Amino acid sequence: MERVCFEDRNCSIARALDVLGDWWNVLIIREALWGTCKFDEFQRHLGMSKSILSKRLKLLLEHEILEKRSQGSSVDYHLTAKGREVQAVIVSLLQWGDRWYPQAEGPPVVLVNRQTRVPLAPLCFQDEEGTPLALADIGLSAGPGANEETRERIKQIQRAHGRS
Amino acid sequence: MERVCFEDRNCSIARALDVLGDWWNVLIIREALWGTCKFDEFQRHLGMSKSILSKRLKLLLEHEILEKRSQGSSVDYHLTAKGREVQAVIVSLLQWGDRWYPQAEGPPVVLVNRQTRVPLAPLCFQDEEGTPLALADIGLSAGPGANEETRERIKQIQRAHGRS
Repeated sequence: MERVCFEDRNCSIARALDVLGDWWNVLIIREALWGTCKFDEFQRHLGMSKSILSKRLKLLLEHEILEKRSQGSSVDYHLTAKGREVQAVIVSLLQWGDRWYPQAEGPPVVLVNRQTRVPLAPLCFQDEEGTPLALADIGLSAGPGANEETRERIKQIQRAHGRS
Repeated sequence: MERVCFEDRNCSIARALDVLGDWWNVLIIREALWGTCKFDEFQRHLGMSKSILSKRLKLLLEHEILEKRSQGSSVDYHLTAKGREVQAVIVSLLQWGDRWYPQAEGPPVVLVNRQTRVPLAPLCFQDEEGTPLALADIGLSAGPGANEETRERIKQIQRAHGRS
């Protein structure tokens, strides 16, 4: 499997992918969201080797997705705000997995409103004025950080889609 | 970089990760969402080798994320409904990338309401009754497809979080 550095590309998706780096990182963050904070627990729940886990934790610390906290003689790993916000990515993966790769018996895990236990609805999109949007309602504009190539690309897309 | 098969794990996130497979697949789906449908265009926009791109397209066809359509003598690749729904994952990656790895000049691409050009708001969570939820309001329950291990795990998490 190839590993490519996306860092210099003019695309926030590619930069997010570069940082999250590989799927182990996403699963480690999922574990941390579920309350895992000790090395041994990560290893046990994810069935990872110690050396892979060490490398991934180091990277997640460097990117300030996790932070270390001393707990007596042991060290705990906790999510930072940046790490906690990966939850939106994780929820979208879970919902897509549930919908398109369902298990015969139903989903193994259900996300719920912690207070009322009512299940989570599919992720919803809306614009900054609160108008709900379906996937097909979402278009692209060039942002202030678009380089010439991106700007040209978005123009092409808009022409092709009748102003996407 | 290790490649692990997550297929047999009792987790929809892991199954989604197994299928999306690697980040090239996500970027190919992003391209397709933006209207790319020809082999040469995918190659040019993503800067991929022909052989890597061929393998990834084959996999995405097998998983029915893309489908082929003949267009005269050439073949186009189009997203299926399953492929289009990966957009939720892509939007969540883009928003996280914009927020935590901002470019000095601002985001290169802005997602907008296609009709009004009003920018997209951050993804929102709500339960099936329409109650808006912050990340911290989301808890876990065992679903009908939970195996013994998952069930036990969720009990532990709920105990640790005071009923997560």
